Amino acid sequence: MTTDLNQLASRLQDFARARDWEQFHTPKNLAMALAGEVGELVAELQWLTPDESRRLDGEALGRVRSELADVTLYLVRLADLLGVELIEAANAKLNESERRYDADLFRGSARKAPPLTS
Amino acid sequence: MTTDLNQLASRLQDFARARDWEQFHTPKNLAMALAGEVGELVAELQWLTPDESRRLDGEALGRVRSELADVTLYLVRLADLLGVELIEAANAKLNESERRYDADLFRGSARKAPPLTS
Amino acid sequence: MTTDLNQLASRLQDFARARDWEQFHTPKNLAMALAGEVGELVAELQWLTPDESRRLDGEALGRVRSELADVTLYLVRLADLLGVELIEAANAKLNESERRYDADLFRGSARKAPPLTS
Amino acid sequence: MTTDLNQLASRLQDFARARDWEQFHTPKNLAMALAGEVGELVAELQWLTPDESRRLDGEALGRVRSELADVTLYLVRLADLLGVELIEAANAKLNESERRYDADLFRGSARKAPPLTS
Repeated sequence: MTTDLNQLASRLQDFARARDWEQFHTPKNLAMALAGEVGELVAELQWLTPDESRRLDGEALGRVRSELADVTLYLVRLADLLGVELIEAANAKLNESERRYDADLFRGSARKAPPLTS
Repeated sequence: MTTDLNQLASRLQDFARARDWEQFHTPKNLAMALAGEVGELVAELQWLTPDESRRLDGEALGRVRSELADVTLYLVRLADLLGVELIEAANAKLNESERRYDADLFRGSARKAPPLTS
Repeated sequence: MTTDLNQLASRLQDFARARDWEQFHTPKNLAMALAGEVGELVAELQWLTPDESRRLDGEALGRVRSELADVTLYLVRLADLLGVELIEAANAKLNESERRYDADLFRGSARKAPPLTS
Repeated sequence: MTTDLNQLASRLQDFARARDWEQFHTPKNLAMALAGEVGELVAELQWLTPDESRRLDGEALGRVRSELADVTLYLVRLADLLGVELIEAANAKLNESERRYDADLFRGSARKAPPLTS
């Protein structure tokens, strides 16, 4: 991971250790916590149109930022426990997607799902 | 964000632009994609015990790594569109949790939910 | 539950017992399985506009129907294990929402989130 | 659907119509709301062991029951909008699983994922 992600992972290790919460931080439990936080993120955007979701007012953006932070914390903690380098893994996956979704073939295609991943 | 997260966000911008997929990449849609990928991650661990989830074999770990990568891609893309600095937001949230969950008061407490966040 | 939900719950009991899978069907695991299936459902609709999601073609509707079925199976199994009567609980929750969201006060309000629940 | 599910769907129609909220109740938005509620359900169980999740105390069970109710409301509303008969679809899916997972071949297999669905 990057320095900043490593530092965050390290802070989370300390946080858990100081409270003796490492016992709760299994990958299974952390994946659930991640799902819970993503649920809260989704809930912030559920009644907005796609366009409205592009121009959140300050208050809504603050709530979304807070949920994105929570998602990041659990994602980094989970990856750290499993020894997964998130940036490296994400770049590898994006390499795959670039090959799979040829830019000329898939341009603007609404028929095909436009994923980042596969 | 860190250099590496910035670079990843930039790659994702190029990826979307080259395929004219920016139209699909609204925060609402990306939050749904994120939820979908977290669902796949959770599914990998759903029948394991918490202990088993700590010691995944190589094949299972590969699948989980791939899902973590997908989650990272959508999270970084979503944060980039909203102008949210993930590392900064996550550190701010962790500061809050350190205040809220006093290490001495909450040590090892199974009665209290042991979140990273609140 | 209704007769049909009871029958489905009973079929799921038999299904699990015949395979000795009751050991895996803890509420925790089933909640994860439910989250996984909802993730698949969300993924089916993630790149569609809200309007497009109202008029799915036959193939897309078939996939969504299949995911709704999966969600139902895990929801009914989970509720059965916990002794929760889904219909009764849902009606009680809707009673609350009717009181909380006065029809005259909340009519057409886009400012307020329009939940079914609270 | 069963009578009770039909009645619940009908109540939800009235609820939305009385508040002019049908405009928000697109399948896309409702799938997001469903994901949000499942996230809350998962969060209730995230730090428990699988065994602990089998024997929730009254307070925890009350919260889980409330989340199961919310999930049911959005699931029934979504299915109603799409014209999907949940019980029929779920039974059809379970028929498939009974064929796919032969009871003798898959009995107690921890190696194989023990899904209700496929």
